[in-house]
Order: sequence, then C-alpha cells, then structure tokens
Amino acid sequence: MHPLVSIIMGSTSDMPVMEKACRVLDELEIPFELNALSAHRTPELVHDFAVNARERGVKVIIAGAGGAAHLPGVIAASTTLPVIGVPIKAGISIDGWDSILSILQMPPGIPVATVGLDAAQNAGLLAVQIIATGQPEVMERMLAYKKNLGKKIVQANEELASVSFRFRVRRGVGG
Amino acid sequence: MHPLVSIIMGSTSDMPVMEKACRVLDELEIPFELNALSAHRTPELVHDFAVNARERGVKVIIAGAGGAAHLPGVIAASTTLPVIGVPIKAGISIDGWDSILSILQMPPGIPVATVGLDAAQNAGLLAVQIIATGQPEVMERMLAYKKNLGKKIVQANEELASVSFRFRVRRGVGG
Amino acid sequence: MHPLVSIIMGSTSDMPVMEKACRVLDELEIPFELNALSAHRTPELVHDFAVNARERGVKVIIAGAGGAAHLPGVIAASTTLPVIGVPIKAGISIDGWDSILSILQMPPGIPVATVGLDAAQNAGLLAVQIIATGQPEVMERMLAYKKNLGKKIVQANEELASVSFRFRVRRGVGG
Amino acid sequence: MHPLVSIIMGSTSDMPVMEKACRVLDELEIPFELNALSAHRTPELVHDFAVNARERGVKVIIAGAGGAAHLPGVIAASTTLPVIGVPIKAGISIDGWDSILSILQMPPGIPVATVGLDAAQNAGLLAVQIIATGQPEVMERMLAYKKNLGKKIVQANEELASVSFRFRVRRGVGG
Amino acid sequence: MHPLVSIIMGSTSDMPVMEKACRVLDELEIPFELNALSAHRTPELVHDFAVNARERGVKVIIAGAGGAAHLPGVIAASTTLPVIGVPIKAGISIDGWDSILSILQMPPGIPVATVGLDAAQNAGLLAVQIIATGQPEVMERMLAYKKNLGKKIVQANEELASVSFRFRVRRGVGG
Amino acid sequence: MHPLVSIIMGSTSDMPVMEKACRVLDELEIPFELNALSAHRTPELVHDFAVNARERGVKVIIAGAGGAAHLPGVIAASTTLPVIGVPIKAGISIDGWDSILSILQMPPGIPVATVGLDAAQNAGLLAVQIIATGQPEVMERMLAYKKNLGKKIVQANEELASVSFRFRVRRGVGG
Amino acid sequence: MHPLVSIIMGSTSDMPVMEKACRVLDELEIPFELNALSAHRTPELVHDFAVNARERGVKVIIAGAGGAAHLPGVIAASTTLPVIGVPIKAGISIDGWDSILSILQMPPGIPVATVGLDAAQNAGLLAVQIIATGQPEVMERMLAYKKNLGKKIVQANEELASVSFRFRVRRGVGG
Amino acid sequence: MHPLVSIIMGSTSDMPVMEKACRVLDELEIPFELNALSAHRTPELVHDFAVNARERGVKVIIAGAGGAAHLPGVIAASTTLPVIGVPIKAGISIDGWDSILSILQMPPGIPVATVGLDAAQNAGLLAVQIIATGQPEVMERMLAYKKNLGKKIVQANEELASVSFRFRVRRGVGG
Repeated sequence: MHPLVSIIMGSTSDMPVMEKACRVLDELEIPFELNALSAHRTPELVHDFAVNARERGVKVIIAGAGGAAHLPGVIAASTTLPVIGVPIKAGISIDGWDSILSILQMPPGIPVATVGLDAAQNAGLLAVQIIATGQPEVMERMLAYKKNLGKKIVQANEELASVSFRFRVRRGVGG
Repeated sequence: MHPLVSIIMGSTSDMPVMEKACRVLDELEIPFELNALSAHRTPELVHDFAVNARERGVKVIIAGAGGAAHLPGVIAASTTLPVIGVPIKAGISIDGWDSILSILQMPPGIPVATVGLDAAQNAGLLAVQIIATGQPEVMERMLAYKKNLGKKIVQANEELASVSFRFRVRRGVGG
Repeated sequence: MHPLVSIIMGSTSDMPVMEKACRVLDELEIPFELNALSAHRTPELVHDFAVNARERGVKVIIAGAGGAAHLPGVIAASTTLPVIGVPIKAGISIDGWDSILSILQMPPGIPVATVGLDAAQNAGLLAVQIIATGQPEVMERMLAYKKNLGKKIVQANEELASVSFRFRVRRGVGG
Repeated sequence: MHPLVSIIMGSTSDMPVMEKACRVLDELEIPFELNALSAHRTPELVHDFAVNARERGVKVIIAGAGGAAHLPGVIAASTTLPVIGVPIKAGISIDGWDSILSILQMPPGIPVATVGLDAAQNAGLLAVQIIATGQPEVMERMLAYKKNLGKKIVQANEELASVSFRFRVRRGVGG
Repeated sequence: MHPLVSIIMGSTSDMPVMEKACRVLDELEIPFELNALSAHRTPELVHDFAVNARERGVKVIIAGAGGAAHLPGVIAASTTLPVIGVPIKAGISIDGWDSILSILQMPPGIPVATVGLDAAQNAGLLAVQIIATGQPEVMERMLAYKKNLGKKIVQANEELASVSFRFRVRRGVGG
Repeated sequence: MHPLVSIIMGSTSDMPVMEKACRVLDELEIPFELNALSAHRTPELVHDFAVNARERGVKVIIAGAGGAAHLPGVIAASTTLPVIGVPIKAGISIDGWDSILSILQMPPGIPVATVGLDAAQNAGLLAVQIIATGQPEVMERMLAYKKNLGKKIVQANEELASVSFRFRVRRGVGG
Repeated sequence: MHPLVSIIMGSTSDMPVMEKACRVLDELEIPFELNALSAHRTPELVHDFAVNARERGVKVIIAGAGGAAHLPGVIAASTTLPVIGVPIKAGISIDGWDSILSILQMPPGIPVATVGLDAAQNAGLLAVQIIATGQPEVMERMLAYKKNLGKKIVQANEELASVSFRFRVRRGVGG
Repeated sequence: MHPLVSIIMGSTSDMPVMEKACRVLDELEIPFELNALSAHRTPELVHDFAVNARERGVKVIIAGAGGAAHLPGVIAASTTLPVIGVPIKAGISIDGWDSILSILQMPPGIPVATVGLDAAQNAGLLAVQIIATGQPEVMERMLAYKKNLGKKIVQANEELASVSFRFRVRRGVGG
C-alpha cells in the first residue's frame, strides 16, 4: 500500500513529538511515510519532495519544525496538497512563539493548516479527517475514534468519586 | 445538603490545581460537587450540565481548563449563574497565556469571572464571597477568614527577626 | 433605593469605558452609584470606601483602571464583597497587558473577578448575575436578557441573505 | 448544488474578513453556504449545525471568530469534518493574540486547522485543497490557480524596472 | 543608628531575592530595616508604614513583590520618599511579566523607581546612590565600590587565557 | 544657579515626551539642564558627560531613549549618580517593549531607576524626591505637590454628578 | 558595473521600507540590483537566484519580508554569501513579532544577519561594512559617513538652545 | 597570525554559549581572539577596544551579551567593522526577550547583525561568510562546510529506517 500521508520533520530530534502523529495514523490504519528533511540544510531535497508528493499518491503532508520553522511553508509553496504544520517547542525555540508564528502567518495564497504547539497527535487526526472527506470507510473509523474520546473522560469522572471523601463534596452532575 | 458550588475541570489532570478550590470551600463549609467534563470531548454533557445547574440549586460554577480553555466560556453561554474561570498552566499550555486569554476575553453578553493563573484557591474564595452576598451567615465566616489572612503575615514578619542578626539591620516598622 | 452595585474608576477619563457597565445595570434595573477614586492619588478615600461599602448595603463592587491598575486589588484587600476588575486599555497602558496582569494576578486570599479588556458591559452583567444568586426576581430579568442575546444574532444571520447574491452561495444552516 | 464548504462567523461584524474566503471559493467554483452563529449567544444552534453538517453533504467547515474565539473549537468538538479556524483581529481582540491562541491550542483529539490572523483567503484555499484530495477536477483548478500566483509577482518585479532609474541600480536577477 | 533604608517584601518567601539588597547595604554600611508586609493582606499596616516612614528618618524605601505586585505603588501613594520597586519572578508570577508591569506602569504623579527582575542587589545600590546625593562620605564609598566592579571583570578576562589553548586563538585586546 | 538635574535624550525627536520632565522640575523649582546626546552616534560625548556630571554639581540624571535604548545604561556605567531611565515608545520602537527591556534589565552593579513608558513626568518627580532626601526645603515643596494630586481627582469626582442623571444612579461614596 | 549587493523583497508592497537600503547604498556608491521575489509564490526563482548570486559577483544579499518571513532564510539555505534579513511590519504582520522571529531564529549552520524592524537603512549600511572588510576604499567612505552621523546630533543639540527659554533651564553639557 | 575575528562576551559566564563561535572559527581555520569585557563595568576598555580593532587588523567583531545587552551596540557605535550580536538567554534574562530586543533594535546608522538566541555557532559562520567575501580561499572552505551540512541530515534520515518497523510506515521520499 502506498502512503497517503507523508510526515516530514526538520530534524530527527523532532521525532519524540512527531511520533504522536505516527501513532494516530497507525491506529486509524492510514498508510504513511516518515522522513527528516531540512528546509535549510537540504533545500533541494525538500523542493523535489514537495513537487513530486502529489504524483506519488500522497494526499496530505504533515511537516513539523522548531525555531524559524520554514519547512511547512516551503513545502506548501511547491504543492497543492494540504500541508499541516506542527510548531515544535524544542532546541533553539523561544518558548515556541517563533515556531508558531513562522508556520501560522503564511502570506495570501499559500495556506498552512497549523495545529497547536507540539500537537502532532492532532496533526495526525486532521490528516485522517481530510482523507475521510473523500473516503467513506475512513470516515467510519474516524467516527468510532471520536466516540471513544468522550468515553475516556466520562470514565475519568467516575474516578473522581474516590477523591471525594476527602472533602464535604457531592460528586456527580446529576441527581 | 445539596451543593451550592459546582467545580468542573477540563481533565482530571487539572485536579492538583482545582483541589485548592475544594479546600477553601471545605474550610468555609460551603457544600460543593466536583466533576471532570471536557468542552471538546463531552460537549453534550457540558451543555446539559450548564443548562440544568441553576435548577439543581447550584449558585456558582467554578470551571478550570488549560490551553485553548473553552470550558468556562461554553458553560457561561448556557447559564445565567456566575461562572468563575481558572486558567491552568499545564500540559499543552504556552506558559499559561493561551489559557488566560481564552477565558478572559469573552464577548459582550457572556462574562466569565477570571482569576489568576492556577489560582483555584481564589476561585473558591470568590465563590464564597458571591454566596455571602445573599447569605449573612456565610458573610460572617468570610469576615473571620479574612481577618486571619493578615495575622499570618504579621507572624511571618516576626520571624524575620531571626534573620536580622546576619545583617547590620534594625527590624520592625515602628519604634 | 440604595445602590447595590458601586462602580469605581481610577480616573474620569475611564468614563467612556465604564459607562457600558452603567447602561447594563440601568437596563436590568439594578440601583448603582458611580465614583472616580484613585488608588494612588486618593489612597485614604479608597480605603474608607472599601471598608464601608458592605455596611452601606453595597453587594458588588466594579472597579476599572488602566496601566499599573491597582484599584481593584486594593479595594479587594479591604472588603469581603466580590470585586469585579475591568482592565482598561487607555492612556499610559501598554496595549492593555499591564492593566490585565495587574488586576488578574492577585495573590492567594484576595481574589478579583477579572473581565476582558475594556469589558465593562460584562462587568455589569456579572454584577447582576451575582446579585441574582440571592434575589430570584433579578434572576428572572437576567434570564430574559440572555434569551434576547441569541435572538439578535439569529436576526443578523437573516441579514446575511442579502449578502449572498454576490456569491455562488446557498445561505442557511438547514435544508 | 448543495454546499461543500460551510462558512461560519461569530458575528456579522466579521464579514469584511470572512468575505475573502467567499471570494476564493467563488473563483474556484466550490459551492458554499454562509452563516453567522455565536458559540456563546446561540450555543444550541452551533451544536445542531456541527452535528448535522456532515450528513447535509458539507465536506469542510471554515469558522472565523475574534477575542476568546471558541467557535472553531466548539464546532470541531461535535463533528468529524475538518474545521478550519480563522483568528480575527477585531473588536475586543488584543492585537489578535487572544484569537490565535484560543483557536490554535486545542486539546489532543480535537484538531482545528488554524490559518493566520484575518487570513480568510487562505482558509478558503485550504478548503479547496482538502476537497481536491478527493476530487481530481478540483485539483486541476487548484493547480491552475497556483500557477497564476507566481505570475503576478513576476509581473510586479517587471514594474520595479520603472523604479530603478532613481538609484544607481541594475535591476534583474539574471545576466 | 536609625535605619536610612527600609526594605519591605510582600511575603517572607521573597527573602532569597531581597537578601541581595541587604547584603549590598551592609557592605556599604548603610543602616536599614527589614519587614514583610502585604499590600493585600495587611493594607492598614502598609499604609501606616508608608505615612510614617519619612518622619522616622527613613530616606529610601525598597519594596519587592511578585504577581500583581501592588506593594511598591501602594507605598509610593502615601509617601514622598523615593520608592524603589523590585519585581519578583516567583510563586504565582507569569515569567515575571506581571510583576514588572504592575510596578513599572504607575500613573502620572506617583513614580516608582523600578529595577530589573529579581534585581534586589541593584535596588540596594540605587538606594545607596540616592543617599549619596546628600551625604558626601557615602558617595566616597560608592565610588570605591564602583571601581571594584571593573576590576573583577578584568581579572575574569585574565582567566580566559587558560581557555585559549583549546582553540587557535590569540587572547587579549591589545598587542 | 547650577543645574541639579541633567536631562538627556537620545534624539531631539524625544522632546515631546521629555518636555514633561522639564515641566515638573520647573514647577517644583529645581534647576536643570537639557541635552540631546546619542549613546550610539556620539559615544564619546556621552562618556565625557557621564564622567563629569557629578563634579559639575549634578545630583540626578534623567535619560530617555527608544528602541534598543542604551543611553541610560551607558551613562549609569560611568557615574555613581542615580540615573533615571525613561523608555520611549516612538520611532523604531516595538510598542515600547524594546525600550523598556533595554533600560530595565541592567546587570548587577549598574542600576537604572526605570519609570513607565513615556513617563517623563514621573521621572521628573522621582528626581525631585531624590533631591528632597538631602534638602528639606525641596521635601516641603514635594509634600505640597502631592497633597494637590488628590484634590484634583476629588474635584473630578464631583463632576461625575452631572453625568448621573442619564442613569438610575446615586453618586457619591458616602451617605 | 555589476552589482555588489542584491536587494530582494517578498512583495513590491515592501518597497517603501526597502527603499531606505537603496538610498544608503546609492549614497555610499555601492552598485546594487533590486528585485521582488517571493519564497512562497516563486520558490524556484528564489532558489535559482540564491544558487547563482555568488557567481554573478554579488557579495551581500539583503532580503526583506513580513509575516512568516521565510525569504531571507530560504536564500541563506542556498548560498554561502552573507544574507542580511529585514523584518517588515506590514500587511499581515502581528506588530512585527512574526517577521522578527521567522528571520532571527535560524537553525545552526544557516545564519541570517538580522537587523531591526523595518530597518532597511541599517541593512544597507551593514552591507557596506561587509564589503568594506575587503575593499579599503569602501572603508574610507564608511568612515566618513560615520563621522557625519555624530555631527548631526551635535547640531540638533544646539537647536535645543531655542527651546530652553521656556524653562528655568541651563542648556549645555559643559561649563 | 593576527586575529581576523574578535569575540567579546559581557561576562565569562557567557563562555558556554560563546564557545560555539570559537569552535566553528577553529574548524574553518579563521584566527580569532577572545575576551570578556562589560559595556557597563569596563566601559572605557570596551571603547578602546572598539576604536582600535580595525587598525589591529580585525575584520569582524562578535559580541555576546544577556539581559539589557548593550555590548554589541556600544561596540558598533565606535567602529565601522561589521558587529555580529549574540543575544544570550541566561542569568538575569527574561526568556531572552530582553537580550534580543536590546541587540536587534539599534537606531538608524548603527547596525548590529543579530543572530538567534544563544546562536553563537551561527555568529561564527556569519563571520566566516563575511571574511569570505574578500578572501576566495575562505569561500572555498565555506562551500565545503555547507555541503557537509546537508549530508548529515541525509544520513539522519537513513536512520529513521530503523524506527519505521514500529509503525505501518513506508519510509523514504522516493520510489
């Protein structure tokens, strides 16, 4: 199966963050590929990658980078595929502000779909949601995944019951 | 006794912060309930909670959340009870700025009473002060609590006396 | 009728902002008083005001100030009434950040219920919501007010219909 | 033709910004609908909208809001469609920081594809790119659109030639 | 000898920072006093302190506080003595921004001489410089202290010589 | 009469701000001198000025600058006189943040007494307060000036009476 | 004469800022070329430009851009010439913070020499200083230019004399 | 061999950062010198250094400093050599913002070539690039160095292959 999502990171040191995108794609059974390419150290590889991704069958690109994070924007400049940008707070980054603004504030004509700081899991989910717009069976999996999210917090709420005895507290929303 | 204050947090991981609200309500003998509900993962439970809280006898809601902290505002949208918002600096939050601004900057018509970052103790006190406006016996307890606050710092000041000998210092405001 | 809400501003130049609190209290028929007192230029008047407000029958205090905005916190230090703080972006203020942080970040024990920048209308509404916790007839008025908020935006949405012809657009949520 | 993109704004005052999304969708011949719904003033309409959009055939939602901008996140909470968020710098917003952070910093599980401040044109293009992943004929139009972008700046560069005479300048990249 | 400088801190937890002011006053032989008083928890003690300091012979007040740091400004409101404010990055503070802005941005008529974040040593020196304007023998000590500052860095520079061998480096400004 | 205060600005374009310092010194009858010297364009003049100011009888230096505002710190490096820094929001400044941080965050050993953004009036007053610590007759003038500050706001409060009729308002703190 | 400096701007709308670089190069008689190329809209032209600039005899590149300002970094990625980056506060930029951080925070290995916001004049001067390191006759012109800078502010200081009469002021640093 | 680059740091505590500049100059065989001089504690040494550097044969100055980082600007004021500024996040610095703004926002006429926070390696490389504009053999070394940068990331990408097996992933850009 050829990859539908291509994950790129600016440096292999971004792997602990970008791994979260891999996990969610794996869980939702979306084939993907994974590469480290730097907008600044391997500009020609990045350009070739961006120009060819669509013809190779890739549907969505996820690009993570920190500091003056040009990778997502540089890729978006050379493809018509949707590019999801993950700002990374690491290494040289100033609390993440530089990564966020370098990715978010793209000029008219070249959008990057930016997610939260270090939010590679959400980048993965967004990629699935995008693919699901054209593939009903992926949409089914996405619906199931989402239903599950709520269940976890309902369970967590149950566990607060054990906390309650410490306080003069009546737990529970309802009756 | 049914709860007068309802404490909601976006995730059980916010418990170490929100616990401080529980403690102050407990100390001032205000019955309360405690729940974890996510504006994003359990939106319908949140909506039901907000719509019904007033009729269940709740007087004040305290809602704590981090990151894009929508919980306090989403609850405020569906109730006329005063909602106190606690911005939480944790997990995905960017030094707390995202939590603060997401809670504070509500549009005209839907106020949220925002307290400081992680300031759940103050949220608890503010809830007591609000209830006290309609219940004189609660106001009495609040007055006693406040008198006590000053005493602690006066005592702390006394302890500075032991520090003084290290310096050429004369301690004490007065004579 | 004696005032239930007391509005204080740090300077009469804050009147254009604080007026919005007056309007909403007037509309919801809550008697109020209005004063300009500076935490820094008239500290003793502020202290006397704060110490006596509760006994004069005031239920909620709304305090607006800009720059190093100490007024709400200084009042909160000397009363057990709920104090609502309105950060004001004006005069010496640095885009409002100084006002917001000076009001929001109160120490444990002395909460200020902070609303958004220049959000005096929300301060007024919050005061009404607080009073409504003890006065059912005020809660009725508040419920009516809130119902009205939604209607306005539904009407505004209708007006988008006239915009539509410019685009290849089908207006309307529904069918 | 039923709408593939649904544009929502928090207030009709956001129309001058959101209009830019309409224009680009119109130019690229994507049918869309346009509504004003407030997360805070009409929470139930927003919830119904979000829950039903997918079944009505909508593929992508674009939501713009300012200040504590909850609209995109609240919609994302109740749909599996990709939601594009447009932070708006207007009215109550603090230079746009509140809008950006309220939209960007969503919790794990609920992504919002955030574009730049007031960047509704890019939101429109991103929607087209997403739809294009499943519809080859839309991809064709998108490819043509993109080719055009570069041409404009090449033309603009030609015009710099008329500027040159004022300086000791040789215009032109090449020979 | 009665104290010429009065050091106040908002909480005894600020002692590790404020101690640096004590040390420099001690070294330059300026008698001082040390107290913990909170603008919010002991407002009346603070007021009495500020009103009486001048008549007790105090020449300069140094006030340190964190978060919504009102202490320096509140004292400055009730005295004509120069007040030096030390913003403290600790406890509830948001990276120190709240402390800095709450102290720095005082309204016209009530200056606070603000020093850098946690810069209590500089607060102490500034107090000495102020006293030195009226006391020639203090100015002599201050001149000696300053001469010494430069010597330390010249010595430190000498030590870089030992570092040099690791690199192809020629140390030294001069020949 | 030789000048006791020396006002320096980085550029004559800072005159509209620094003039406020002149006015307050004039009102309180403190002789002063006024110069424009740039830390970057006339570094040697600045150095000579700083080294000689004390011996010329100057007691306090007020230095205002914008952008990377080095002037106050550079002067403080070469004198033991107290230096008051006025950050100026103008010209190249980024909303004043650069000016504030360049002046405030001086290293240990070289304090600058920083006042608020564009707060030259407060710089003037602080200079008077410093001189007053050694000259009782100046302290008398300062006490009179301060008493006057409160009166103005009390008068302004009186004028709010005329506003009241528009609202259901009872003006006045007292009875 | 072939150009020694190549000025690139992301959009012709940046011309009013970048013109200041042209003026200073013109004044100091450095031949230059001027182009508008977008990192995002004409990525291949930018790449070709960067790869070939050195061989065409260019010594220094000045690149100005706003928002997510990738142009300077993208050029630096493909050349060993020094690249000077000019952050531009305009159009989509958030008070210039996005432009500054996108240009400044480059990863190890790919420096961009960043100047202040909109500081194209300084970019021009820096280019001259760089060229002067290898061309003594340019260094001579640079030395003359710098001498002139100080003279202007000395003259401006003279003009303050006419201001003085309004105040009780003695102008002049010296005697 | 006399030094072509002169590295100055405000304090020897900046050595761990500035060492990275030394390493890159050493690797590229550029002779350099290394000194600690403080703009505030040894202003006269700094001035002498700046005035004489050019005549001693220095081509480029690299100056690193933290907090109110005046060192690069103060040196630039007294030389026509290119000055590279390294903002340092350490000691008293507020997350590096103060260092960045104090170095970057220089007034017209006195440029400092600013690199990223703690980015002394890039400062070293920029110095080599500047020298290379006048010395072809240095340019050769620089070209070789740059080629190497890309190779490292290509190798790193190879290593991602070992990661892949954990996921349903196809590694590699190409076929």
